[in-house]
Amino acid sequence: MAKTTSLSGFPEWLPNERMLELILLDQLRHTFELHGYTSVETRAVEPLTELLRKGETSKEVYVLSRLQDIGNTETNSARQLGLHFDLTVPLARYVVEHAGQLAFPFKRYQIQKVWRGERPQEGRFREFTQADIDVIGQETLPFHYEIELPLVMAEALQALPIGQIQIKANNRKVVQGFCEALGITDIDQALRSLDKLDKIGPEGVTAELMNNGFTDNQISPLLAMAQIQATSSAELNTLVAKLGVHSELLSTGLQELGALIDAAELRCPGVMVADLKIARGLDYYTSSVYETILVDAPGLGSICSGGRYDSLATVGKRTYPGVGLSIGVSRLVSHLLSQGQVQASRSVPTAVLVIVDAEETRQISTGIADSFRARGICTDVSPTAAKYGSQIKYADRRGIPFVYFPESREIKNIITGEQTEADPATWSIPSEYARVQLVNVFS
Amino acid sequence: MAKTTSLSGFPEWLPNERMLELILLDQLRHTFELHGYTSVETRAVEPLTELLRKGETSKEVYVLSRLQDIGNTETNSARQLGLHFDLTVPLARYVVEHAGQLAFPFKRYQIQKVWRGERPQEGRFREFTQADIDVIGQETLPFHYEIELPLVMAEALQALPIGQIQIKANNRKVVQGFCEALGITDIDQALRSLDKLDKIGPEGVTAELMNNGFTDNQISPLLAMAQIQATSSAELNTLVAKLGVHSELLSTGLQELGALIDAAELRCPGVMVADLKIARGLDYYTSSVYETILVDAPGLGSICSGGRYDSLATVGKRTYPGVGLSIGVSRLVSHLLSQGQVQASRSVPTAVLVIVDAEETRQISTGIADSFRARGICTDVSPTAAKYGSQIKYADRRGIPFVYFPESREIKNIITGEQTEADPATWSIPSEYARVQLVNVFS
Repeated sequence: MAKTTSLSGFPEWLPNERMLELILLDQLRHTFELHGYTSVETRAVEPLTELLRKGETSKEVYVLSRLQDIGNTETNSARQLGLHFDLTVPLARYVVEHAGQLAFPFKRYQIQKVWRGERPQEGRFREFTQADIDVIGQETLPFHYEIELPLVMAEALQALPIGQIQIKANNRKVVQGFCEALGITDIDQALRSLDKLDKIGPEGVTAELMNNGFTDNQISPLLAMAQIQATSSAELNTLVAKLGVHSELLSTGLQELGALIDAAELRCPGVMVADLKIARGLDYYTSSVYETILVDAPGLGSICSGGRYDSLATVGKRTYPGVGLSIGVSRLVSHLLSQGQVQASRSVPTAVLVIVDAEETRQISTGIADSFRARGICTDVSPTAAKYGSQIKYADRRGIPFVYFPESREIKNIITGEQTEADPATWSIPSEYARVQLVNVFS
Repeated sequence: MAKTTSLSGFPEWLPNERMLELILLDQLRHTFELHGYTSVETRAVEPLTELLRKGETSKEVYVLSRLQDIGNTETNSARQLGLHFDLTVPLARYVVEHAGQLAFPFKRYQIQKVWRGERPQEGRFREFTQADIDVIGQETLPFHYEIELPLVMAEALQALPIGQIQIKANNRKVVQGFCEALGITDIDQALRSLDKLDKIGPEGVTAELMNNGFTDNQISPLLAMAQIQATSSAELNTLVAKLGVHSELLSTGLQELGALIDAAELRCPGVMVADLKIARGLDYYTSSVYETILVDAPGLGSICSGGRYDSLATVGKRTYPGVGLSIGVSRLVSHLLSQGQVQASRSVPTAVLVIVDAEETRQISTGIADSFRARGICTDVSPTAAKYGSQIKYADRRGIPFVYFPESREIKNIITGEQTEADPATWSIPSEYARVQLVNVFS
């Protein structure tokens, strides 16, 4: 990361770091488009009233004022704008606003910055890039999208040099059905406590639930359920059956969750696991929920989360159900940069630098460069007609692999030292040098 | 443009409009990278003190506050942040901050949103995308970059479906040298008045200059100079020589401007013209300045402007000279959309829709889709196992050209009606359908 970040929480990358981010973003976009998701961008601002619908996020919103309006309370009171803190609230508003002009089910990807006025800390930024996919239906949305979306994300993430991933899935209906069968009415409290299982352990969760009036007969099966992990519907059903808890909603949930992990195992083996303690988001999602960890860095937390909303938005009697997941791109990039294992092969797109023999012949070098460019080879021309050594250093400092000498009509690979005659109109660049690539530093 | 824009000045595109913008942005990036420019993104916010250095822009800045800090004057006074209103101020700050880690001359492109709290009007947005290229030197920056950058922009713009462009160039040294030779000391006033030539005519400019104490002997040659246009150094020198005004600075300026238009004529014939009334920006640029109009829509104003700063930034004794140009992408996109001549060939990336014969066989359709995707063909699977007619309608509404029937193993081009047998593992898509393209609606 750029060594001196003058504003805490607002990451900024150096060119070679940005190159890595750009390669990741291109790859994500490529996967999303392969699966038919179309690009949407929404404006960075939303009316404050939209942003504050969820009370708990109110503190994180950046509010905008025009400089000359500051102190003008009349202007400040109504119609205030804030920067969006995610891409889901804007999507809901966009879908409602343009519903008449969209084709449903509407599959979109959205890669944009979001802002949160949180206290910055490790891996938490105030400005960061998210990459979201969502599918939105009008009135109905088939269950099979709850299988499709996490698997598109699995494919997208597996194409990145981030090591093995694991998607943990759960289903609101499983947890709610289980709770209802146990006579638990405060399901949100059950979820909040179970969410702390990894942090405070079964004893801590037990204590907290007892303090909130849960009985032993509720706590014990609840804890047993929360510790269930399974990679097939058969395994899942067997483990849950052992607990002897039954309800219709639980059965529906188990059927959905089982179908999800069986389909995942078939199409993307080893990536998804049903994990019944996953509670995050269960309070606003209505069936499937997903979290994704890097197997080698579970401490980083979830790098890609989401789930299904039965009503992402509602207008009058019309509802828009949705399924979506969101990748925290800046957090991922920051992690990769701090690990230092993967790097962009150079800090510029340039593959060839054309030498300038004298300022008077710069036109010749420029013409040669255009010749390379006409065939898609990213080419720069030396800034000065300095000694060859200095010009080669210009290439070297940026990681540009090839230098072309107009006088001798030769091209030199400055990494291997190999130098051969070359015609700019026909020379073909070895494919490993054509585009900037990610390279494993230690291999 | 999305018909109901709920926030004036914050444009938002429908999927097919966004597709057009995305194709334009991809093309710009491609040209910039071909010429060796590397991507940089800066954070969206800058300290207010950075943003307010140029007094005249102060009214346009959006200031940020965290919601809970509103009304807390202590926090509001110092360390306030504002959204950047261009990409030049952030670049200057980025270069100074990371100078030790950058290689100079530093060539970067930057495509980002900027925000201005202006009163919205035709073609003026409060949030819009800019695409900038700049080259920044440390202490020195050779003149040839003043030729390179507008020509890279010319190439970038000529690759877009926007019709013919014209780049109008001028040089601060020409105007300043000319003024000095006439004994004019208030050069800024001369520039401000000449800038209105097209708007208020020679009479209006004369009146304004007289009001500001300019003499007839100054106004008359000044107006004559401002009306000079030339496409070669020879023509330029002849026309200026007729005015009988001489100074060393003027000669230097004419030499630079002449070299620029001669080089442009050689590499990019018919695109650039020296236009000595171009005054915009001459007050902060130090030699070349550029404006670009669409020949078919001059009323749109400049779509790409810039120039050379001798010191983009200064730290102690160290200066960073720069040359840069900026394209107003949102304005261009908005213009293209309102003209309606060019459209994206479809509103989704999808080239093939795989039919689902029954929900029980969805897996088969998904497998076929994966087969197409494995060879880079963007593919979607039908949302329901409805009648073929309904499924084909899904494709049709989005402009997806091909529909694949798993049962008959046939692919149908729903535009031409042609239907043939096809193996998803080997079928090759006609190149005109492979990617979304821009099509001329009236041709």
